[in-house]
Amino acid sequence: MPSNTARVAGRHFLQIPGPTPVPDRILRAMDMPVLDHRGPEFQKLGRRVLENVKTIFKTRAPVVIYPASGTGAWEAALANCLSPGDRVLMYETGHFATLWRNMAGKLGLDPVFIGSDWRQGADPEAIGAALAEDKAHAIKAVCVVHNETSTGCVSPIAKVRKAIDQANHPALLLVDTISSLASIDYRHDEWGVDVTVAGSQKGLMLPPGLSFNAVSEKALAAARAARLPKLFWSWEEMLPANRNGYFPYTPATNLLYGLDAAIDMLHEEGLENVFARHDRHAAATRAAVEAWGLEVLCRVPEHYSSSLTAVLVPDGHDADAFRARALEAFDISLGTGLTRLAGKVFRIGHLGDTNDLTILGALAGVEMGLELAGIPHRKGGVAAAMAHFAAAAKGALPRAAE
Amino acid sequence: MPSNTARVAGRHFLQIPGPTPVPDRILRAMDMPVLDHRGPEFQKLGRRVLENVKTIFKTRAPVVIYPASGTGAWEAALANCLSPGDRVLMYETGHFATLWRNMAGKLGLDPVFIGSDWRQGADPEAIGAALAEDKAHAIKAVCVVHNETSTGCVSPIAKVRKAIDQANHPALLLVDTISSLASIDYRHDEWGVDVTVAGSQKGLMLPPGLSFNAVSEKALAAARAARLPKLFWSWEEMLPANRNGYFPYTPATNLLYGLDAAIDMLHEEGLENVFARHDRHAAATRAAVEAWGLEVLCRVPEHYSSSLTAVLVPDGHDADAFRARALEAFDISLGTGLTRLAGKVFRIGHLGDTNDLTILGALAGVEMGLELAGIPHRKGGVAAAMAHFAAAAKGALPRAAE
Amino acid sequence: MPSNTARVAGRHFLQIPGPTPVPDRILRAMDMPVLDHRGPEFQKLGRRVLENVKTIFKTRAPVVIYPASGTGAWEAALANCLSPGDRVLMYETGHFATLWRNMAGKLGLDPVFIGSDWRQGADPEAIGAALAEDKAHAIKAVCVVHNETSTGCVSPIAKVRKAIDQANHPALLLVDTISSLASIDYRHDEWGVDVTVAGSQKGLMLPPGLSFNAVSEKALAAARAARLPKLFWSWEEMLPANRNGYFPYTPATNLLYGLDAAIDMLHEEGLENVFARHDRHAAATRAAVEAWGLEVLCRVPEHYSSSLTAVLVPDGHDADAFRARALEAFDISLGTGLTRLAGKVFRIGHLGDTNDLTILGALAGVEMGLELAGIPHRKGGVAAAMAHFAAAAKGALPRAAE
Amino acid sequence: MPSNTARVAGRHFLQIPGPTPVPDRILRAMDMPVLDHRGPEFQKLGRRVLENVKTIFKTRAPVVIYPASGTGAWEAALANCLSPGDRVLMYETGHFATLWRNMAGKLGLDPVFIGSDWRQGADPEAIGAALAEDKAHAIKAVCVVHNETSTGCVSPIAKVRKAIDQANHPALLLVDTISSLASIDYRHDEWGVDVTVAGSQKGLMLPPGLSFNAVSEKALAAARAARLPKLFWSWEEMLPANRNGYFPYTPATNLLYGLDAAIDMLHEEGLENVFARHDRHAAATRAAVEAWGLEVLCRVPEHYSSSLTAVLVPDGHDADAFRARALEAFDISLGTGLTRLAGKVFRIGHLGDTNDLTILGALAGVEMGLELAGIPHRKGGVAAAMAHFAAAAKGALPRAAE
Repeated sequence: MPSNTARVAGRHFLQIPGPTPVPDRILRAMDMPVLDHRGPEFQKLGRRVLENVKTIFKTRAPVVIYPASGTGAWEAALANCLSPGDRVLMYETGHFATLWRNMAGKLGLDPVFIGSDWRQGADPEAIGAALAEDKAHAIKAVCVVHNETSTGCVSPIAKVRKAIDQANHPALLLVDTISSLASIDYRHDEWGVDVTVAGSQKGLMLPPGLSFNAVSEKALAAARAARLPKLFWSWEEMLPANRNGYFPYTPATNLLYGLDAAIDMLHEEGLENVFARHDRHAAATRAAVEAWGLEVLCRVPEHYSSSLTAVLVPDGHDADAFRARALEAFDISLGTGLTRLAGKVFRIGHLGDTNDLTILGALAGVEMGLELAGIPHRKGGVAAAMAHFAAAAKGALPRAAE
Repeated sequence: MPSNTARVAGRHFLQIPGPTPVPDRILRAMDMPVLDHRGPEFQKLGRRVLENVKTIFKTRAPVVIYPASGTGAWEAALANCLSPGDRVLMYETGHFATLWRNMAGKLGLDPVFIGSDWRQGADPEAIGAALAEDKAHAIKAVCVVHNETSTGCVSPIAKVRKAIDQANHPALLLVDTISSLASIDYRHDEWGVDVTVAGSQKGLMLPPGLSFNAVSEKALAAARAARLPKLFWSWEEMLPANRNGYFPYTPATNLLYGLDAAIDMLHEEGLENVFARHDRHAAATRAAVEAWGLEVLCRVPEHYSSSLTAVLVPDGHDADAFRARALEAFDISLGTGLTRLAGKVFRIGHLGDTNDLTILGALAGVEMGLELAGIPHRKGGVAAAMAHFAAAAKGALPRAAE
Repeated sequence: MPSNTARVAGRHFLQIPGPTPVPDRILRAMDMPVLDHRGPEFQKLGRRVLENVKTIFKTRAPVVIYPASGTGAWEAALANCLSPGDRVLMYETGHFATLWRNMAGKLGLDPVFIGSDWRQGADPEAIGAALAEDKAHAIKAVCVVHNETSTGCVSPIAKVRKAIDQANHPALLLVDTISSLASIDYRHDEWGVDVTVAGSQKGLMLPPGLSFNAVSEKALAAARAARLPKLFWSWEEMLPANRNGYFPYTPATNLLYGLDAAIDMLHEEGLENVFARHDRHAAATRAAVEAWGLEVLCRVPEHYSSSLTAVLVPDGHDADAFRARALEAFDISLGTGLTRLAGKVFRIGHLGDTNDLTILGALAGVEMGLELAGIPHRKGGVAAAMAHFAAAAKGALPRAAE
Repeated sequence: MPSNTARVAGRHFLQIPGPTPVPDRILRAMDMPVLDHRGPEFQKLGRRVLENVKTIFKTRAPVVIYPASGTGAWEAALANCLSPGDRVLMYETGHFATLWRNMAGKLGLDPVFIGSDWRQGADPEAIGAALAEDKAHAIKAVCVVHNETSTGCVSPIAKVRKAIDQANHPALLLVDTISSLASIDYRHDEWGVDVTVAGSQKGLMLPPGLSFNAVSEKALAAARAARLPKLFWSWEEMLPANRNGYFPYTPATNLLYGLDAAIDMLHEEGLENVFARHDRHAAATRAAVEAWGLEVLCRVPEHYSSSLTAVLVPDGHDADAFRARALEAFDISLGTGLTRLAGKVFRIGHLGDTNDLTILGALAGVEMGLELAGIPHRKGGVAAAMAHFAAAAKGALPRAAE
């Protein structure tokens, strides 16, 4: 990380909702010579990660691994399943859902967007209603963002599935889990998702550069008829090679070393423990926000994200000026408000490889930054979060309360 | 590089024509915490690499950097410049040219393929003739592989440019330099190339995971009218963000750290010295092949590649059995023969971060492997290569003879 | 760092008073191939670090670098200056001063120990008085620990020098700066120190494995007459080789790479800024201790250490049980009470490469740990530290108040 | 490895007889955060390496691990076993034996040196004769270098043991295995060695910075009576702490991570395979020397070293000028001739983590360097070594012939 600036001591607090801090063990695993991607040593690695990554998605279906960052996996999901002009029902959970919708339009699809106020997850009833109206089954896919990274709201995917089923509609279900996979409970098979889109740089604790499509049988069938042009993203190119542990073109070898380590680490901790840890960090963060007298953007408690918390700043104050002041004074990166939320919210990332004391350091940076930036607030946020963590450590909190 | 096998001592000889050995300095540069890709520290990095990478392509035009491996940059070049049904003239230099042709077909283009025996680079005259016949200017682009990685033959790009100009044809010139950039002299601006396609894992000495499009003014103009669907690959998405040092979606941050280091290293050595080093290693390798009494696949000396040398094994012998034996006995990876060359050739990669003694160790592995595998040959290949290197070290060889 | 235990997420809080967290840049600098220690490339490195390290000691005198940890540099200081039976005046600042005294005894010297309550630095007057009584100049050296790592008390070295001078006594002044160098202002030349003992793993931000003797002209003269047996520690072996950038036996090459980087980093930040940062972290820590209603071990405010703070736990409570609880619940390592302080104090290290938010995370770990372990205290320590840091960030605190 | 010079491409050939190339796996294992050396996580590591390192020495006795380079372990062996004025019988195998003798003198011992021509290992008969004459048992220890790094001659330790026993002499046997341990078969217990001295930077494949004393019961008993002053080196300080996995002063934590990995790697390969590999590389190197028509320094074939080969250059030629030329032209470091061998020999290191092709690259560098430097020789050295390796790979060589 070359720099020409005066040195800032200590470790940067990277509290954006991804990329997340990469553990040393993963960085060191990646810091190894490149292998011949057509050789037997690579094949063992390829087979292992292609098989083991399924456990993270909770699926038995194939998971395609792209040597590309997450936006590509969005495009892959659409390009493999759909044909020019196909109608797709998308839900406006926030900035990223909007970007996905825009992508669908640019790819020549016909996106129908269910609007929202960016303060909650997707509404299964609205999706069900839209499908029920679509008697002709013009809608070929429903696209939902599981954890909307711009707002900190989680959509109830299992209920979306039920809504589709109750509408008796054949549309595919495509879900973006870029900022939820390996952070918030997610079940590709059990929830009947057709394509799960994911990336490396969030709950998987890797640098950016890998992305994923978990692909159901139904999605594979759809792919055989889909006519959007593609090659790099084509499952049909990938899956035959993957069966032998290989890839049809040069894979991102060193990121695969990291993925191999990341999967091991997640299982060493236990996926359920990983989720509980994220829940705990999110609850402590919201306790701090409440103590500050500020407002969490997400209006629906059941939709609270365990990956990040978006916080509204009072009218007349600039969230970005606050973020810049906190960065300058305390070397902490917080997430910016995106498009319609610009200047109005800041986002605290609490996902990936982190722990209670790091979260408290980060919340202290926020609390002091609010003071420095002159954002009206009460003190006591860090104290509230500490109370939450101390209670959790004592076992005084029921698991659900975390 | 996880392994469950018994340990093999020492350093693997990765003598495939890419990925190439990544220098420690680059691996360590990448082995650093991920930055906030929307923050000021990243911006400095982004601006620096986006500007400095141009020097490697010898261009002043923008160079788009994708967080994706090289095949993606092929797709990007086609998708940005062309519309469904567009005719493209492509030259069958070998396996990779064929893959690119196949991609063009899958993307809905109309590729016209000038056939060849896979033992030489592209023929500018044939290209000129095809263009001259295309009075209606149905051909929208000419696609040529600069260094065909499957054969070790280099196409004369400057002459291809001249052929296009002499035909007075408006077609764009798209060139794949995946296995030549930063190994063999290449000049995007001077040679009038419209899109140069490149990847990170060869002459740039990085792991796979980045790829590039250097883009001329004419290509940018074509892109404004092109109708192939795309978003991830879209220059229109990339370039405005790049102007400020940022990217429209999450970049492969750690590979950018590596790229920053790689560019520095190439200039510390001096690009002309880098090319001369590759020329020397290639000449020594061919001297070894000649001494063995084997045949270099490339039939045209002016087309000899300085990145790799493909070697024919005598009829009745299996190049892959030889490669497996060499790998097992001496821990050396050699390139396989691809599709129509399968079993008939092996390829010796001599590109990227390497030196005379490593090349000699590799050639010794080949020579002993030939013996173990029972491939008819004469001894003395290593000795011939040593003679070449010793002469070069003495300054006894004119530069051109290297 | 191999582990067979269930994974603990996030980064460990290493808040012992050394070893300190090693910055990534230094770990990566060390993670490089070993050089030939008799070759020209090494020589450049040797010359550079041998010269540049002097700036950290604020000396123009030679600094001997041992490929050994800090205890060795204690032994070196004694063995080079003294002869069997020599009397040395040592000051009992705490555990480490006692260990040094014990070493002197085992080496066959005659240590005279000025006792103390382990709650303050050395008293220059007591040293002056002892020297004044030594009319025969039997005392050959005065040994003082600058920052006593077991207690968090700093000795006023400049005043000790004055006391020696006022006694008109020829004794050498030997000072241990193991836990103060590059953390607390120190001036080998200006303060007239004869041998400064230091180690790599504290303010220098390196792993353990290097140690240092900065050596005055007077010490060199004494060394020529000294008869304690030694070879590994012998300055006479070291200094002639050092003049050419080499070492008389194999140096710890990779730690020298790290030292080279560490010196650069200290100067990029600015030594005065480094000291001010340590002062600020220490003041904030004491503010927390005061808010908790606990007692800082050091009784003399002018002797407060900026490297660490030792905190007394109330009678009837066990500091080690608290430390174990904090480690288990929050993955934080705190320093134990040593020998006569065992169970009575815990020590908070706040030296080396750290920053405000990390210190706050650490103090939060302490505050919550006190609660979990049932140590009587008031809440509000973290809040007090935050108030200190926020004031400092606003520029509201005079520098002296930090 | 900071450098201000123009970049040299590829990987340096470090062919000195130590330090040896450190495998990536070990460098990465060391490139990890420092642990609290008084905490439970460290304790697990300490116990593991202290126990497992014994297997490398083939002993059940304690092995003391110093955070210091190898010269220190020489001093430790002497200082722990002996008292001022004690007579020690030492054997002049070469430069390093001479340095050890000089150290003994500086420590106040009375070394008796059996002279030699530096072209063979120690002569057990001469040692037996000297002991037989020592009726008064004034000789307290016999010191022998197992593999003399300056000459490439191995001393027959088992025979030395027999000679001592046949003389019925109570002297301790102290053996330096710095450049043989984990490269050449060595058996602390079976051969009845009392103190084995070793270092990290040769067969153990670590950077310099750790050294070792394996200590017999008899040596421990001697230590209780020994009066040479010491503390850092004192077994009495070390062993009680080691019993719990701890160290009496700060250990070189990160090198212990590396040692942990190195022990695993040696056992993954199998110690017998490690020795056979070194034998094979040495035999191939000697085949090359013979083909060149040059002379191996070691005159006694049974004493040939498998760690390194010292080669005489013809009279009137300067080995160091040759080494400098080879370094400049081919980026290879060879060992220099030391003291009385200066300019007369160069040494080829072939120990540690290496393989056949690397050795061949190195031998090619030597052969071409001889040509560039105008050293009279015949070509064909590399070819001879290749013939040896090819035969070995075919299984055509009996194991003993390797």
